[in-house]
Amino acid sequence: VVRSPLPEDAAIDLAHSFAALADPVRLRLYSLVASADEICSCDLMPLLDRSQPTVSHHTKQLADAGLIVGEKRGRWVYWRAVPEARETLRDLLGG
Amino acid sequence: VVRSPLPEDAAIDLAHSFAALADPVRLRLYSLVASADEICSCDLMPLLDRSQPTVSHHTKQLADAGLIVGEKRGRWVYWRAVPEARETLRDLLGG
Repeated sequence: VVRSPLPEDAAIDLAHSFAALADPVRLRLYSLVASADEICSCDLMPLLDRSQPTVSHHTKQLADAGLIVGEKRGRWVYWRAVPEARETLRDLLGG
Repeated sequence: VVRSPLPEDAAIDLAHSFAALADPVRLRLYSLVASADEICSCDLMPLLDRSQPTVSHHTKQLADAGLIVGEKRGRWVYWRAVPEARETLRDLLGG
């Protein structure tokens, strides 16, 4: 049984999400955020062994792709994975 | 609870898989292959509305990334998704 392909416009949106994950640091960052309820940017720095500006750069790209959202509290940002985006990507991978 | 991040070498391999999916045509192609037990390259052409050389180019890139495997039978190649690669990507997306 062959279903119809993804519509082209949905494919373009999703391709952006995969492009955001096509970088080893962002992939590690996303795997950390996706495996926690939420995670502080202050914890991401030591776990990834990257500076605050580098972590900020990559979290911004993942947030722009709609994969994570952050909430600023005091000095730090607390990040969560966006469940809908994760489900969309998982569905696309089939199974 | 925060788990340790992906090892860097695993992240580099996986980033290649996500890069292979960071293209709208390949994403649609992969979604078709992943949703079927197997699919003939002759069926991919009309479903994607792309020529045989274009389909061949993109299937090769997905195959090089380890996401699909093909078997040539007569004139056509029959493609299947690699279950282990799909599971690895799904696990990484968490849930």
